[in-house]
Amino acid sequence: MSTKKEDNMKCLNLDNINPNFIVMEYAVRGPLVIRAGEIEKELEKGVKKPFDQVIRANIGDCHAMGQKPLTFLRQLLALTLEPRLLNSPDYPDDVKERACALLSSCQGGSMGAYTDSAGLEYVRRQVADFIKERDCGIESDYLNIYLTGGASPGIKSILSLLHCHVDNKTPGVMVPIPQYPLYSATIAEYGMCKIDYYLDEDNKWGLNCKELQRAFDEAKGDCQPRALVIINPGNPTGQVLSRQNIEEIIKFAYDNQVLLLADEVYQANVYDKDSEFHSFKKVMYEMGEPYRSQELVSFLSVSKGYLGECGIRGGYMEVINMCPKVKAMLTKSITASLCSTTAGQVAVSALVNPPRPGEPSYELYNKEKTAVLSALKERAELVHKTFCSFEGYSVNPVQGAMYVFPRIDLPPKAVEAAKAKKMAPDALYAFELLESTGICVVPGSGFGQLPGTYHFRSTILPQTDKLKLMLEKFRQFHSDFMKKYK
Amino acid sequence: MSTKKEDNMKCLNLDNINPNFIVMEYAVRGPLVIRAGEIEKELEKGVKKPFDQVIRANIGDCHAMGQKPLTFLRQLLALTLEPRLLNSPDYPDDVKERACALLSSCQGGSMGAYTDSAGLEYVRRQVADFIKERDCGIESDYLNIYLTGGASPGIKSILSLLHCHVDNKTPGVMVPIPQYPLYSATIAEYGMCKIDYYLDEDNKWGLNCKELQRAFDEAKGDCQPRALVIINPGNPTGQVLSRQNIEEIIKFAYDNQVLLLADEVYQANVYDKDSEFHSFKKVMYEMGEPYRSQELVSFLSVSKGYLGECGIRGGYMEVINMCPKVKAMLTKSITASLCSTTAGQVAVSALVNPPRPGEPSYELYNKEKTAVLSALKERAELVHKTFCSFEGYSVNPVQGAMYVFPRIDLPPKAVEAAKAKKMAPDALYAFELLESTGICVVPGSGFGQLPGTYHFRSTILPQTDKLKLMLEKFRQFHSDFMKKYK
Ligand SMILES: Cc1ncc(COP(=O)(O)O)c(C=O)c1O
Ligand SMILES: Cc1ncc(COP(=O)(O)O)c(C=O)c1O
Repeated sequence: MSTKKEDNMKCLNLDNINPNFIVMEYAVRGPLVIRAGEIEKELEKGVKKPFDQVIRANIGDCHAMGQKPLTFLRQLLALTLEPRLLNSPDYPDDVKERACALLSSCQGGSMGAYTDSAGLEYVRRQVADFIKERDCGIESDYLNIYLTGGASPGIKSILSLLHCHVDNKTPGVMVPIPQYPLYSATIAEYGMCKIDYYLDEDNKWGLNCKELQRAFDEAKGDCQPRALVIINPGNPTGQVLSRQNIEEIIKFAYDNQVLLLADEVYQANVYDKDSEFHSFKKVMYEMGEPYRSQELVSFLSVSKGYLGECGIRGGYMEVINMCPKVKAMLTKSITASLCSTTAGQVAVSALVNPPRPGEPSYELYNKEKTAVLSALKERAELVHKTFCSFEGYSVNPVQGAMYVFPRIDLPPKAVEAAKAKKMAPDALYAFELLESTGICVVPGSGFGQLPGTYHFRSTILPQTDKLKLMLEKFRQFHSDFMKKYK
Repeated sequence: MSTKKEDNMKCLNLDNINPNFIVMEYAVRGPLVIRAGEIEKELEKGVKKPFDQVIRANIGDCHAMGQKPLTFLRQLLALTLEPRLLNSPDYPDDVKERACALLSSCQGGSMGAYTDSAGLEYVRRQVADFIKERDCGIESDYLNIYLTGGASPGIKSILSLLHCHVDNKTPGVMVPIPQYPLYSATIAEYGMCKIDYYLDEDNKWGLNCKELQRAFDEAKGDCQPRALVIINPGNPTGQVLSRQNIEEIIKFAYDNQVLLLADEVYQANVYDKDSEFHSFKKVMYEMGEPYRSQELVSFLSVSKGYLGECGIRGGYMEVINMCPKVKAMLTKSITASLCSTTAGQVAVSALVNPPRPGEPSYELYNKEKTAVLSALKERAELVHKTFCSFEGYSVNPVQGAMYVFPRIDLPPKAVEAAKAKKMAPDALYAFELLESTGICVVPGSGFGQLPGTYHFRSTILPQTDKLKLMLEKFRQFHSDFMKKYK
C-alpha cells in the first residue's frame, strides 16, 4: 500500500484543473504585491532595509491608506447591526430613522436574515431614486437594480451571462487598453475572447471611435463580439469622457449590436475643472430612439467615491433595456448564491440616501465628504505636477478616479537588463522601486499598453504628507535608476 | 430609422445567452417562493385569504423566523465597524479586546480596507485554532483556510476549479439525492455533469457505499467523475452520518480518486442523542495513510449553527492535501473578486473565537447559545412527532440540521390532477398548502427523490408557538387534501 500521495497522483493537478484558472492573471495583486507583503514581514522581523515601511500605492484602497470612514455611514451600520444602540442618545435622529426603516425592510427585522437575491426592495427603491435625481429626472425602475457585494460580482455575473457560442464562435468582450484587470481576469476565467481597443494616450486617454471599429472588425473573424466595456472615469488612466465621446460610443454599440457595460464606479471622483461626469444612461436617454433602447448595464460601488468602503463589499448594477426573459435568467442565476451581504446593502443605502440639508447629520456629513474629495483633488494635482517634472516621464492629467498612469521612456540598457531577467521592462522598474524605496506600484504590463511603451500605475491615495515623502523618494530612485542604466 | 427595439432585435435574447443559465434551477427560491411573495403583497393590500400571514418554512433562515442574534457577535460587529464605541462603558472588555485585535489586523486599522483575498490572516489563524480544538489536536494550517462570503462562494469556486475536460469527457460531480440545490444549480451553471447517488430513506437517510459505487460506475462512461459532495448533517434530510459511514466514504473517494467536498455547515446542529458529528478531516487523519493524504475541502458558515447570521455572509473553507500548485491557482482565481466582506470575516471570528469561561461575556453568550440549540432540538422532535401522526406520511427523525423531509403517499387522484396541470405531484401538494394555509414549503422534486416518491422539505425554524400553529393548520390541510383526492 502506498504511503503519502505524490502530487502527480493527486485528484487535482495542473493538467486536470480548469485551464482558464491557469492562464488568468490579476496584476493588482500579482507577484509585485506578494513581494511587498514579504518585505513587510521582513521589516517586522527587524530585517534592515533602506526604508522602514512599504507604501502600498498599488491598489485603490482608500482606508488602507489612512482615509477615515464617514461618520454617517458607520453610525448607520452600527445601528442596523446592533439595534440596541437605537436607545442611545449618542446617535442623531435622522440616522436612527434610517436604521429603523432598513431594519423593518428585513425579514424578521434582522440584518441576519437573507434578503431577496437582488437585495432589499427598500434599498433598491432608494437606489432608483438616487439615479433619477442624478440623471435630472430620468426614470429608474427598482426592478432593474441588483445589489451586489461590491461592483465585482455584478460585473462577473453579466460577463457570465454572455457566455454563449453563437455559430460556433467564442464570445468576445471589448475592453479598453489599459484596463482594470478584473475584466481580463474574468474573461480569461470564462474562456472568452478579450478584444483590445486602445485608449489614445496622446489625447488625454480619450476614446476614438475609429479605434473601436478597427478592434471590432479585426476581432469579428475570430470571435463574436458581444459587449463593450467602458470605464469612466478611467482606471488606470484617470480620464473623464466628454459627452460627445459618450454619444459616439453609444452609437457604436447600437450600430454593432453589442451590450454596453458602463463601469462608472468612479463617478463621484472628478477633479478636473473642465471635466464633468455624464452617465451613459442619461446621455442615451437624451439621444432618444433608437439609442435610448440600447441595452446597458451600469455599475457603482461603495468602494470608491468619497466613501472608500472597500472591505464592506457593497454595490449595485442597473440593468437597462434588457429583454425581460433574459433578465429573468440573470435573476435566477443570482439566486443560487442567496444574497449579497446586508452590511454592503446598508452601505449602499448610505451612499444613495445621504443626510439632506436641515437634517441633524447633514453638516458633519457634508464636511467630511468635502474634505475627502478636496484632499483627493489636491493629491491628483500634486502627483501629476511632480511626475511631470521627472526626466523621461510623460503624464496625462488625473481628471478623475484615483490613479496616475505615467509613461516612462526607459533607457535601452534597462530594457536589455529586463530581457536578460525575462521580465517586462516596466516590471523591472517597479521591482527595483519596491526593493529600494518600499513603494509598491503596478507595472503597466498588468493593465495592457501599446507594445514598446512602458508605464506604471500609482494611486493618489497616500495621505498628503506621506504622498509628498513618497514622491521625494520616487524622484531620488528615478534619478538613480536613470544613472544606473545610462 | 427603427423606433424601439423589439426583443428579438436585442443584443441578448434567449438564443444567444449562456445556455446553462436557462437550464439551471434553484428550488429553494423557485416558483412557489415567488408565489409566496406575491401572496404577502396581496395580504398587505388587504386581499382576503383564509390566513393572515405567510409562514416561510421554505428556507433555512433563522433570523427571518424570529431567532435573535447572539449579543456577543453583534457587539463585536458594532465595535469593529464603529470603533468610537470602544470608549463606551456599555461593552464588556473581552469583546473590546477582540475588536481591537481585529482592527489592528486590518490595513489602515479599518474594516473599510480590502483584506487579503483569502481573508484576514488574523482570522484565518483563529479558524485554524478552532479546527484544531474541534478535532482534538489535529493540526490545521491557516494557509489552508479561505474566508468566504457564506459557504456558497467557496463551494462555487471549488466546483469551478474542477471544470476541465479530461480525455474530452465532461467533468462530473457526485451529489446526494436529495441534495441542497446550490449543487445542482452550480453544476448546471458550469455545464458539468451531476452524478446522482441516492441516500437510503429506509435507513434514516444513511449513505450506502455500494450505491456510491453504482452511481460512479454508471456515470463513468458518460463523464469524468471528479468530486464527491457529502452534506453532513444533511440538508434536506436531517441525517447525521456515523463514523463508520464516513470511513467508508473516505475509502471510496480514495479508491476512485475523487476530491471530497464535505459540506459541514450544520456541524453544530445535532439533536439526536445517539448521533454525533464527526468531521471528515478528523476521521481521515485517524485512519492514517494512505487515507489521510486524501484531498478534502470542508465548508462552514455563520449562516447556520446557533448563530444563524445568514445575511452577514461569512464562512470559510479548509482545503486539505491539495497540490500546492493547484492551490496557487485557486488563490489566484479568488483574487480578481478582491475579498469577502469584512463584516462576514468578523462574524467568522466570533464563531471560532467565542467568549471563554471566566471572560465577562461568557455567561450571557453561553445562555443564548444554549437557548437557541435547545429550542431547535425541541422543534426537531415536535415536527417529527407531529408529521409521524399524519395519514400516509413516513418521516425519518431529524437527527441534525434544520429540516424535515417527510415522504407522502399521495392518492392516485392527486397524482392525476397534477399531471393534468403539468405539475409535479408534490408541487401540487405544496401549492395547495400555500394557497389555503399560507405555509410555504419546498416540494421534494426541488431536491431530487426516487422516481415515484413524493416529499417536501419544511424547516424546523418557526418559533415554537408559531410552529405549533403551523402544524395544526398543516394537519387540517392534509386531512382536507386527502379527502379531496380520495
Ligand atoms: C474600474 C473598477 N471597476 C470595479 C472595481 C471593483 O471594485 P469593488 O468590487 O470593490 O466594487 C474597481 C476596483 O478597484 C475598479 O477600479
Ligand atoms: C448544505 C448547505 N450548504 C451550504 C449552504 C450555503 O449557505 P451560506 O452561503 O449562507 O453559508 C446552505 C444554506 O442553506 C446549506 O444548507
